[in-house]
Amino acid sequence: MILVADNIQVMNQVVERAIKEMDPEPICNLAGKCENAGAQMIDINPGPLSKNAEKKMKFLVEAVQETTKVRLLLDTGNPQALEAGIRACRTKPIINGFSLEPRKLDLILPLAVNFQTDIIGFLLSPEGQVPHSSEERLNIASRLMEEANRAGLMLEKLIIDPVIVPLAWKDGTKQLKEVLSTIKLLPELFGFPTRTIVGISNIISGSPSLKKSLLPEEVCLSMLSESGLTMALLNIFHKRTLETARICDSINNNRIFSWAEI
Amino acid sequence: MILVADNIQVMNQVVERAIKEMDPEPICNLAGKCENAGAQMIDINPGPLSKNAEKKMKFLVEAVQETTKVRLLLDTGNPQALEAGIRACRTKPIINGFSLEPRKLDLILPLAVNFQTDIIGFLLSPEGQVPHSSEERLNIASRLMEEANRAGLMLEKLIIDPVIVPLAWKDGTKQLKEVLSTIKLLPELFGFPTRTIVGISNIISGSPSLKKSLLPEEVCLSMLSESGLTMALLNIFHKRTLETARICDSINNNRIFSWAEI
Repeated sequence: MILVADNIQVMNQVVERAIKEMDPEPICNLAGKCENAGAQMIDINPGPLSKNAEKKMKFLVEAVQETTKVRLLLDTGNPQALEAGIRACRTKPIINGFSLEPRKLDLILPLAVNFQTDIIGFLLSPEGQVPHSSEERLNIASRLMEEANRAGLMLEKLIIDPVIVPLAWKDGTKQLKEVLSTIKLLPELFGFPTRTIVGISNIISGSPSLKKSLLPEEVCLSMLSESGLTMALLNIFHKRTLETARICDSINNNRIFSWAEI
Repeated sequence: MILVADNIQVMNQVVERAIKEMDPEPICNLAGKCENAGAQMIDINPGPLSKNAEKKMKFLVEAVQETTKVRLLLDTGNPQALEAGIRACRTKPIINGFSLEPRKLDLILPLAVNFQTDIIGFLLSPEGQVPHSSEERLNIASRLMEEANRAGLMLEKLIIDPVIVPLAWKDGTKQLKEVLSTIKLLPELFGFPTRTIVGISNIISGSPSLKKSLLPEEVCLSMLSESGLTMALLNIFHKRTLETARICDSINNNRIFSWAEI
């Protein structure tokens, strides 16, 4: 399982201020800490980016690249900012991402084709709604495949995000089961071992206290890993969740488990 | 997932002394604590029971039944002690268990037939060896089915223990994957949703420190639950493992998850 840090995001006030002041140092620091904590990739999520979008994305990519060489995910719906970000990356980034939303099909998917990058496809309705069942998710995955094909993207470049909701939502537990089924069924639909990514932080989003909050992450991550998840987007500073990922990987890769690892 | 306490066992010095002195009070106390902690069943494991086996098993069953009405698992290879235990039980116990070992086929399996109890079948070779793969496990499960059939046991009364080994064993992680596959494949072999049980405490057996030890239990339990495990035999005082089981159950039963539960 590839661990992708979701920590460089605009909801983090340090990041928000650094973007506003175009001050690279806090971003450099944070990126270094993410890599030290175990991040194998880093997601850069600058938010909606209304003003100076291109300049800000370029600034973030360059700041992160000053301290780390890990691969980047560029997490914005702004196509100009995306393109500026892609051009600033030293190694090919992953676009995060597109969906059946017409604007994204028209403006974001072609960027992956032009720059030959991997791109994440969200299993959301064209209106941005979360599907109810794994059947609906697989239908959407089929349509994403068709659109990707039509746009000229090699299907191997598509990474599927089946979209997870907070576990405490009314249908949160059911939705997790549907996501688990989806992950297991995707390889059959695609005809090869499809890469998948899930935003693990969503699981405990809205939790009443951080102290209690990590156990559901651990449980869900274990189940997702057992179902074949390939990439986890998560708060890389959640130490126990990372230890969970390490144990899952030992199990999935037949690696000898050592108590010293955790 | 049904939670079965493995705490009333001879390795626990309190239990060992109580058996030796035939003093019911420590057993009553412990059984009450197990139920309060969340045990839905209690396993009684008095060890080899060479002397006064029948009397000791009867004593244990009666002591446990003084404080709790939960269903009991009788965990001994001594057929006389088993029979005395079964006769002392107010509700039908589960025999834990038999295997392809000839002595167990001859002396233990018939008890389940005579008393019409459920019985656990271990996926072990006739010599008591742990199989290497899920294929070997399924072959053994087939032979257990044949033997159960021949003895006149209804197959629905058979609960399968696919046998887990400590995660830190050289092949511990591989063995867990084989157990997960086995649990997923058993319903196809049996033709109905087969009940399964796993000894969760085995996972961390031999761990260097208790402080670190619960995370592998949590991860493995989550994976086992996702694969369809129906019963977990575990140390019922491992609070975080129990919280894990509760989250797993919310997910598997589409129950609304509440932060107040954990």
